[in-house]
Amino acid sequence: MQRLARFFPILQWGKSYTWDTAMSDGMAALIVTIMLIPQSLAYALLAGLPPEMGLYASILPLVAYAIFGTSRALAVGPVAVVSLMTAAAIGKLGLTDPAQIALAAGTLALLSGAILLAMGILRLGQLANFLSHPVIAGFITASGLLIAASQLRHIFGVDAHGHTLVDIATTLVAHLPDTNPITLALGAATLAFLFWVRKGLKPALLSLGLRPRLADLLAKAGPVAAVAATALTAYALDLGASGVALVGAVPSGLPPLTLPSLDPMLWQQLFLSALLISIIGFVESVSVAQTLAAKKRQRIDPDQELIGLGASNAAAALSGGYPVTGGFARSVVNFDAGAETPAAGALTAIGIALAALFLTPLLTYLPTATLAATIIVAVLSLVDFSILGRAWSYSKIDFSAVAATIVLTLGFGVEVGVSAGVLLSIALHLYKTSRPHVAEVGLVPGTQHFRNILRHKVDTRPHLVTLRVDESLYFANARFLEDLVLNRVAKDKALRHVVLMFPAVNEVDMSALETLEEINRRLDDLGIRLHLSEVKGPVMDRLKRSHFLDALTGKVFLSQYDAWRALEGGATAGPDQKGLAAQ
Amino acid sequence: MQRLARFFPILQWGKSYTWDTAMSDGMAALIVTIMLIPQSLAYALLAGLPPEMGLYASILPLVAYAIFGTSRALAVGPVAVVSLMTAAAIGKLGLTDPAQIALAAGTLALLSGAILLAMGILRLGQLANFLSHPVIAGFITASGLLIAASQLRHIFGVDAHGHTLVDIATTLVAHLPDTNPITLALGAATLAFLFWVRKGLKPALLSLGLRPRLADLLAKAGPVAAVAATALTAYALDLGASGVALVGAVPSGLPPLTLPSLDPMLWQQLFLSALLISIIGFVESVSVAQTLAAKKRQRIDPDQELIGLGASNAAAALSGGYPVTGGFARSVVNFDAGAETPAAGALTAIGIALAALFLTPLLTYLPTATLAATIIVAVLSLVDFSILGRAWSYSKIDFSAVAATIVLTLGFGVEVGVSAGVLLSIALHLYKTSRPHVAEVGLVPGTQHFRNILRHKVDTRPHLVTLRVDESLYFANARFLEDLVLNRVAKDKALRHVVLMFPAVNEVDMSALETLEEINRRLDDLGIRLHLSEVKGPVMDRLKRSHFLDALTGKVFLSQYDAWRALEGGATAGPDQKGLAAQ
Repeated sequence: MQRLARFFPILQWGKSYTWDTAMSDGMAALIVTIMLIPQSLAYALLAGLPPEMGLYASILPLVAYAIFGTSRALAVGPVAVVSLMTAAAIGKLGLTDPAQIALAAGTLALLSGAILLAMGILRLGQLANFLSHPVIAGFITASGLLIAASQLRHIFGVDAHGHTLVDIATTLVAHLPDTNPITLALGAATLAFLFWVRKGLKPALLSLGLRPRLADLLAKAGPVAAVAATALTAYALDLGASGVALVGAVPSGLPPLTLPSLDPMLWQQLFLSALLISIIGFVESVSVAQTLAAKKRQRIDPDQELIGLGASNAAAALSGGYPVTGGFARSVVNFDAGAETPAAGALTAIGIALAALFLTPLLTYLPTATLAATIIVAVLSLVDFSILGRAWSYSKIDFSAVAATIVLTLGFGVEVGVSAGVLLSIALHLYKTSRPHVAEVGLVPGTQHFRNILRHKVDTRPHLVTLRVDESLYFANARFLEDLVLNRVAKDKALRHVVLMFPAVNEVDMSALETLEEINRRLDDLGIRLHLSEVKGPVMDRLKRSHFLDALTGKVFLSQYDAWRALEGGATAGPDQKGLAAQ
Repeated sequence: MQRLARFFPILQWGKSYTWDTAMSDGMAALIVTIMLIPQSLAYALLAGLPPEMGLYASILPLVAYAIFGTSRALAVGPVAVVSLMTAAAIGKLGLTDPAQIALAAGTLALLSGAILLAMGILRLGQLANFLSHPVIAGFITASGLLIAASQLRHIFGVDAHGHTLVDIATTLVAHLPDTNPITLALGAATLAFLFWVRKGLKPALLSLGLRPRLADLLAKAGPVAAVAATALTAYALDLGASGVALVGAVPSGLPPLTLPSLDPMLWQQLFLSALLISIIGFVESVSVAQTLAAKKRQRIDPDQELIGLGASNAAAALSGGYPVTGGFARSVVNFDAGAETPAAGALTAIGIALAALFLTPLLTYLPTATLAATIIVAVLSLVDFSILGRAWSYSKIDFSAVAATIVLTLGFGVEVGVSAGVLLSIALHLYKTSRPHVAEVGLVPGTQHFRNILRHKVDTRPHLVTLRVDESLYFANARFLEDLVLNRVAKDKALRHVVLMFPAVNEVDMSALETLEEINRRLDDLGIRLHLSEVKGPVMDRLKRSHFLDALTGKVFLSQYDAWRALEGGATAGPDQKGLAAQ
């Protein structure tokens, strides 16, 4: 039962489910449903898919997450960045047949679900950590800009396309003469209204004396009001005849059972995209879930989250949807509205299912400009260039990773941007650690402390040099240490002893071991003895398993002060302390 | 002049060149020439190229290295592993026309030369360090096996092919019924003779009273003797008519000027192979050069070595050759024979040029089995599985990298093997550092030292926990630390202070900074203060540039003992020490 409950978190919270909890969950579900209807339509548009796929992606995937997910507030469904990545992935296939495009989107969700489930079963939740925070921040900002830019065409009522900022901007500018003035007026008005709802409506309602909860709910309903008002306008004035792009006929009904493609060629073409979507979706989702869980002193299990999101995407694939994940804004709303268990998600699914059954005829006259305005207002809150400034002042290396991620995402699209960001973070980290900080140290007079001779007034001896190595030693920096030691001793004829001080060396891999053997051999040729001091327990354990300690011309000292006392006097040293000295 | 001399090392050693030096270099050149003639023919065969390309690759490339290289003993030319990689790279193109194959080999040398030159100009010699020693050792061993297996077909006189051990073995076994008995007898006899020359000839000559130097020279001439004897036998008995494969007509003359292909398609197909050949060639060459330089207390410049090898490969591309690098055995022979300057290489080039002019008619009757035997005897000395044992006893992680490199090289060929080895080394290193060792420490009674509570009897306090972090903090391990700290405090209601002890933290990147901020915030929610101790100078400098120290609920202590004295008493602490406490 305990084991079962780990894979089905519903068995844990389900036991203590009460009528009160259901009321809280129901209220949260109502608010999220109101928010999710226009969002799901809009994000399907962003992904280049028919609007009903957005609705379908907001029904069964939510139920699947309610069963398998561990977060009590996460609201799953179509989100902006993953929709953009879906558009990029499908765009590469060069498909034109809408049925083929929908099939590819479902297949992408299936692959993504399979990848997430596999990672969950292998307990690879830690993998998400290989995306550095600044890279994620840069990627989200750049994606937000790309998404907003891509939606401008709907506001202007012109044709434009591309997956990079330059492509989008140039095609948009080229088509500007074709701008449909009615679409532009409608789009601009909706944009202005939605910005006002976001910034000005809630304070206005509060000053009218409404309860904060109700004011909040009304503010969240802004996009629904915009959808209703513009659809009604378009119907009343027959704007479709004036060239205003409308959503058109949306089929009514519950999601169909769909079978994704089993074409291995298509799987191969989509695999890398599915992997990127899985990783980005998981990182976005898990960080929201962790933030919200922490507020209630709860913890989530990243490995089980992988299973929850994997099941969600598999459900999306089988019910006419496309890749989904936990959305930031939507989850915060769910949390603030009082969701107490994942059942809130299942109740939201019922709300969306009702919408799919009964509201779709109302969408026929909805201008796409309204949906585009909804997207633009939502994603501009993701854009935050302050990460550049913070990274610049903290670390130039982190800055270069962020800057490269932003530039590459805008210039070459989301997939190149995020891949480059990850690879660059790893490469820069390796580069940093490949040139370790090594300080020559001396004794602070009157103490047992040793400090950098360049920063402090310290005692030294001409026949003795002590180098404190401030990095673990491994293949990428072993040679650097060798060069540094040999260059240091080359200019110094009086030298008889070199002590390598290892308090910050957490690891010595086999390449570094061979380098230490080489340093020992070369120093021996020069008549210089090599000693170690302050070697950590785990490192010492490992060195003992090699032949290095037998070949070492000097000793291993427990503390650097012991080394100083033994060696400061002259060219020879006391009895052998190897082994004894290990911590 | 000083700058010029850096790029043209010949200007340095050329100034002090004397008659004595020339005599030493000449003697070394003679011995290396004798060794290189059969080797260059054999390695061309291994690369799937006509034998004269091996000779051509041993003329101008040696002159180019003599001008630009920094090693005084390195002998450049065709080598076994790079020849095998050349065969793999060209094999992928599916060419059958010999002229096209030769063109592709020259183009590969050009690309490799360009990559090496570019890396040299960008001073990227350090990049070679990203290949861990065990991975290189595993790769060389597996390549040696692959090469020996691939040459067995010439010994049996049958057809066999493939770039993996399984392919080679299955095609060889399938063709065994076609074995040519005369070829097999000749090949087996040559193999036996060469093994005897290697192991038994020198001791025998020494026991006959020959001077060691002369005995050594005669032993090195073994392959030349085998070439002469088998060619003569084949000529006298007309073995070609009995189906024994012979080298056939080899054009006489100096290398032709060749223009590599400028087809961008071909460049693209060969680029990755050229990159791998460049890196492997450079790593092999630079490690030989460093070993030999160290014996004479000389240093080589890895960045200038890139230029030297780049120029060599460019020269090979323009003179009918194929990719070259510094060979291990050959360089050791050059060094032992007394080579004092790179001029020995230029003199060797003259020797090979004379061979190309006058000796090629003698090669017409040379059985390919002889060349195959030469290769097998040479590469089996590369095969050394002891690295597996040493890695196993030292570190399971290093062992898995070596084992994977060997298995993948044998199973999927050289390019997959070496790429996987590099990526796996990096991935395993990141994995290791993503789960840092964190020890809960207490005070060793009567001292100021703090040790792991699990390993030592130490003092602790119920309201105070000190965690020593034994790894730099960066994106891949930041979350791990957060989970660890929060799990530790979750079970402990009495806790009021957490001290993170940072003596081994050499870096805190921006992701880790955000995690520290998060830990600080979460602990604050629980009424627990966070303190740091023993923060290194460079890390403290960086933390001061962020807002973390302002938000920190506790203090930064210079030493852990200071932290203990301030916090052991009770729930509140002394005056603020931030800033002051930085080392």
